Amino acid sequence: MIGIGVIGYGYWGPNLVRNFAECQGAAVRVVCDQRPERLELVTRRYPGVQVTSSPSDVCVDPSVDAVVIATPVDRHFELALEALRAGKHVLVEKPMAASSDLAARLIDEAAARRLVLMVDHTFVYTGAVRKMRELTQGGELGDIYYYDSVRINLGLFQHDVSVLWDLAVHDLAIMDYVLSERPVAVSATGLAHVTGRPPNIAYMSMFFDGNLIAHVHANWLSPVKVRRTLLGGSRRMVVFDDLEASEKVKVYDRGISVNPSPENVYQMLIGYRTGDMWAPQLAVTEALSVEAAHFVDCVTNSRVPLTDGEAGWRVVRLLEAATESMKKQGQLVSLDGVRA
Amino acid sequence: MIGIGVIGYGYWGPNLVRNFAECQGAAVRVVCDQRPERLELVTRRYPGVQVTSSPSDVCVDPSVDAVVIATPVDRHFELALEALRAGKHVLVEKPMAASSDLAARLIDEAAARRLVLMVDHTFVYTGAVRKMRELTQGGELGDIYYYDSVRINLGLFQHDVSVLWDLAVHDLAIMDYVLSERPVAVSATGLAHVTGRPPNIAYMSMFFDGNLIAHVHANWLSPVKVRRTLLGGSRRMVVFDDLEASEKVKVYDRGISVNPSPENVYQMLIGYRTGDMWAPQLAVTEALSVEAAHFVDCVTNSRVPLTDGEAGWRVVRLLEAATESMKKQGQLVSLDGVRA
Amino acid sequence: MIGIGVIGYGYWGPNLVRNFAECQGAAVRVVCDQRPERLELVTRRYPGVQVTSSPSDVCVDPSVDAVVIATPVDRHFELALEALRAGKHVLVEKPMAASSDLAARLIDEAAARRLVLMVDHTFVYTGAVRKMRELTQGGELGDIYYYDSVRINLGLFQHDVSVLWDLAVHDLAIMDYVLSERPVAVSATGLAHVTGRPPNIAYMSMFFDGNLIAHVHANWLSPVKVRRTLLGGSRRMVVFDDLEASEKVKVYDRGISVNPSPENVYQMLIGYRTGDMWAPQLAVTEALSVEAAHFVDCVTNSRVPLTDGEAGWRVVRLLEAATESMKKQGQLVSLDGVRA
Amino acid sequence: MIGIGVIGYGYWGPNLVRNFAECQGAAVRVVCDQRPERLELVTRRYPGVQVTSSPSDVCVDPSVDAVVIATPVDRHFELALEALRAGKHVLVEKPMAASSDLAARLIDEAAARRLVLMVDHTFVYTGAVRKMRELTQGGELGDIYYYDSVRINLGLFQHDVSVLWDLAVHDLAIMDYVLSERPVAVSATGLAHVTGRPPNIAYMSMFFDGNLIAHVHANWLSPVKVRRTLLGGSRRMVVFDDLEASEKVKVYDRGISVNPSPENVYQMLIGYRTGDMWAPQLAVTEALSVEAAHFVDCVTNSRVPLTDGEAGWRVVRLLEAATESMKKQGQLVSLDGVRA
Repeated sequence: MIGIGVIGYGYWGPNLVRNFAECQGAAVRVVCDQRPERLELVTRRYPGVQVTSSPSDVCVDPSVDAVVIATPVDRHFELALEALRAGKHVLVEKPMAASSDLAARLIDEAAARRLVLMVDHTFVYTGAVRKMRELTQGGELGDIYYYDSVRINLGLFQHDVSVLWDLAVHDLAIMDYVLSERPVAVSATGLAHVTGRPPNIAYMSMFFDGNLIAHVHANWLSPVKVRRTLLGGSRRMVVFDDLEASEKVKVYDRGISVNPSPENVYQMLIGYRTGDMWAPQLAVTEALSVEAAHFVDCVTNSRVPLTDGEAGWRVVRLLEAATESMKKQGQLVSLDGVRA
Repeated sequence: MIGIGVIGYGYWGPNLVRNFAECQGAAVRVVCDQRPERLELVTRRYPGVQVTSSPSDVCVDPSVDAVVIATPVDRHFELALEALRAGKHVLVEKPMAASSDLAARLIDEAAARRLVLMVDHTFVYTGAVRKMRELTQGGELGDIYYYDSVRINLGLFQHDVSVLWDLAVHDLAIMDYVLSERPVAVSATGLAHVTGRPPNIAYMSMFFDGNLIAHVHANWLSPVKVRRTLLGGSRRMVVFDDLEASEKVKVYDRGISVNPSPENVYQMLIGYRTGDMWAPQLAVTEALSVEAAHFVDCVTNSRVPLTDGEAGWRVVRLLEAATESMKKQGQLVSLDGVRA
Repeated sequence: MIGIGVIGYGYWGPNLVRNFAECQGAAVRVVCDQRPERLELVTRRYPGVQVTSSPSDVCVDPSVDAVVIATPVDRHFELALEALRAGKHVLVEKPMAASSDLAARLIDEAAARRLVLMVDHTFVYTGAVRKMRELTQGGELGDIYYYDSVRINLGLFQHDVSVLWDLAVHDLAIMDYVLSERPVAVSATGLAHVTGRPPNIAYMSMFFDGNLIAHVHANWLSPVKVRRTLLGGSRRMVVFDDLEASEKVKVYDRGISVNPSPENVYQMLIGYRTGDMWAPQLAVTEALSVEAAHFVDCVTNSRVPLTDGEAGWRVVRLLEAATESMKKQGQLVSLDGVRA
Repeated sequence: MIGIGVIGYGYWGPNLVRNFAECQGAAVRVVCDQRPERLELVTRRYPGVQVTSSPSDVCVDPSVDAVVIATPVDRHFELALEALRAGKHVLVEKPMAASSDLAARLIDEAAARRLVLMVDHTFVYTGAVRKMRELTQGGELGDIYYYDSVRINLGLFQHDVSVLWDLAVHDLAIMDYVLSERPVAVSATGLAHVTGRPPNIAYMSMFFDGNLIAHVHANWLSPVKVRRTLLGGSRRMVVFDDLEASEKVKVYDRGISVNPSPENVYQMLIGYRTGDMWAPQLAVTEALSVEAAHFVDCVTNSRVPLTDGEAGWRVVRLLEAATESMKKQGQLVSLDGVRA
């Protein structure tokens, strides 16, 4: 039985507690929050769980094997570090840390102590995203041409981070899981409509070594909610619309065929292909439930999580580079392919 | 009666001929195309109209008062110039010319000869776009925060121009008409998936002097067709979906309110507003029919067209700048606010 | 403080308990179910609430002022009757009873004892349905011409009741609240695709004294889920689509105008009107929370509920008549305008 | 070369003329209409085609082999009869005739003279409906459980026929082609909202010998346009939405499985199946072009048309029976399985 301590019982914490509470092989031991009314709520819902306002209580608790961190991003590093140093496995909210350097230090700390460090890239555990990876990695889509994602709504303006760190982080985590290739450079643009706040609308292009481009549009000031990803391949193309009740993933047998011209070998003839569309049946288990079980399995059997510290670092590095590019109105920012 | 000569009877030419044929105060006198089978088609459809394979025949024809040019973009300049020099008014397809310099020379030529020079920015003559301008310029939307447009489909790859010159040109023409502000700089990214061809997927951000950002996504390699523009204002927001059979324009009474915090004057409290949505009834006249009548009116009464040479120049200048930025992977390219 | 006892903790019971638990002026005292595992769940969630497997325990409990009945329909009558006889107010699930006679006996019992008898017609307490009533009764729609509702999905086949009693009951309850007129006759058709089961697909037409027709299509065997009501008036028309995330209610300024012909007074000229569409902002409070508060208010202040026993009776009477007509393949069945 | 004469150049006639004009093996010889301005339009568009205001001119014209009749329904019989008696093959608009008796007389006349008699059930020649028949007849859907169609819009009120004869006729023609089974009885309801006019809203249930039910909802007074058919089978289900730009036909691998209970052989256990959805690529040729070629082929090679007089008769018989039932508010009207 893996003992779980949860730090942060705000918006997402309750979902984590609920899923670990129902997860076989795990038991929630203690929940930490600074607001007394949140702790009262925990006690009402889970009479047997301890509560505390001090994160250190969680880290030193001998009944706790693993610490789950669901606080604002600027506290991720210090809390995760304290937990790792106390010998606890860690599952931390996304984005993993406020900078890629801090993320790297957590990876090193966990590696040195042979502890599991996992990042809560929730979408990776949905049936839809797993299907997209399966189609991509299994070659069904052919060569990947582009990845285009739109995540917009009338959203909660954050005080300290831009819309990229709040919304685009989901797309970057999905992209990191679905694609084999890694971006090598970023160009981003955006604007803040409230004086003194970070940008609330942002566009982010990513370049790769091969014939692939990726783009994310994130916006907190849209009158309509859109959650749509296009994934274009040379053989087939995918539309993932997360707002569809069913048929979230549609696979289109559409594209172009490029052939040398019979008259001129330097010229290309482009043909069009439009075939069937197919919406595969998807697993409907709640993503967080799959993720909780995966974390418990990694801790129990010393496995590397699907969304490990490296994945978390890559996503933070992208956000960092995009933030830098956005300040320079689209100027290209290179990414190191590997972590220093 | 204004005599009309049409050069180019390919994809768009037949629509122009049909609308001018039905336009009061105008008469189509001659149609020019290099393909005999296209001219045969003209003769079958319009027995009284002359045909020719030589554009010069159109320009020297004394029964022709105005020349309509519907050829590939790389021939726009020479044909328009010839027509103007022959003393004919000109309506030219979009984009107006292959470069802003060429566009400027046409403007000067027309001005010197006091001839009407109009660009076929067709969308400007739709009920939907007129309503968007009315809402924007009438103050209903408040300050304009962003203009975001997506125009993607499995489209006809062009040999010589990128997807920006083929698809984004529509969005730039609409934007030019709807907004009062003009972009001052562009950052664009894109990729060509067919070797030797111009980019078939492109993203284009535009900056303005004020608190406004614009973005266009154009893609010839999308499995689904999307034609959607978001126009965000401080008071209201608009969604224009051209694929909606009715309700193409929806106005949302949604947004944020920003107030100084009572505790801290340097901090802002952000509130959310979600009110009614409203889809105004739109004029359903075919845009090209409105546009033909407008051109005839401008020629007859010496008026300046809504989509004059200057508008055409501004759109070409944007495409040019975006093409340059795209080659440099998003590097900012400044626009001169006024034509040199 | 109104003490609440809930009988039935299956599919809907937990929602009722949760809402009464959070309802000011009410306290859930005891929950009854025959399955021990359901009672364990209650205890875990609400440690302070008593549990029992005997409905009579609920009825005799002096701390209970009102009994909420969420069992299969065939037990509604006996349980509601026992509760009323024990002097408790009653809120009973829809359909109110297995026959209109039984429903009538409950009304009489409650009246004789001056107790509140309310039926859980949940939709009546949604913002969408309240808006539809407001539009209808306020005259905005003009004369009501038709009410057309589709409620289909791949649904849970019931053992004992047809799809009308399971799905159409919602539409009848909404219609009863929204319209002023009452149906006077019913013609229904349907079919059972599983031998020995009641019909799983059904169509139900309702006639009124005036120029109004209503129709409900209910189906448990549809591959897609549809929840759509059209409400046609002489001045405006409404579409209520419950699956829309926002804009559930749309009001269309569309219709026909009928004028005597200038040439022939016996002939009518029909004109068409298509104006704006308008989606009013709707209250987003959970319907059951509004309903629970309304029930508590009715009990506390001796008010007549919006969805009283009479409304419950009218809906059961319609279901009964439709069932009879369905057996006779559409033969008209008259309804008594008033309860005997 | 089959010479074609067309009677009626109103709403649909121009489409027929255009398609026969482009049809290989056919030539349009003469067009008849009573309105001079319509004939002028013909002459302008087709200078080589004769025009006349007298239908008899068409029937006696020796250059005419086949007569196409596109007039209001009340003239179909006399005109078709005249053409047949003059030895011409006939293609007649739907509904075939104003009564099933008149339709039968046309069938007999054509049979006696060995002439082709075809009814313009246009939808039968669409890729979508052909695919539906293929799926149904090929067994992919299993046993057919229900056919449900909705065809509503703000439509042109007809003077003389109800909405069933104007809109539902399409659904009955499609159903006649797609299903193997034939209805044996009809129950219909409806209402006229304009005094003195036929019903503008109608509901029509059809019963079959087997375990199948069909229903059509037609409405001229709907604020929104709907064209949607559900076809439920024991193995798979189809949704045909004619307003979808692409993916008009979707095949759902969904349904129920019915098994005897292990405990009680008289009880059934119902399971649910939800699998993939699949949208087959459809032929995009204009239906009327396919139909024109089919008619020419039937005339040239003495074949029986897919939509022959018998199909036309069956649809008229259904409309007739529905009209009768509608007058009696849903009373069942039996259909003779075979034509007398």
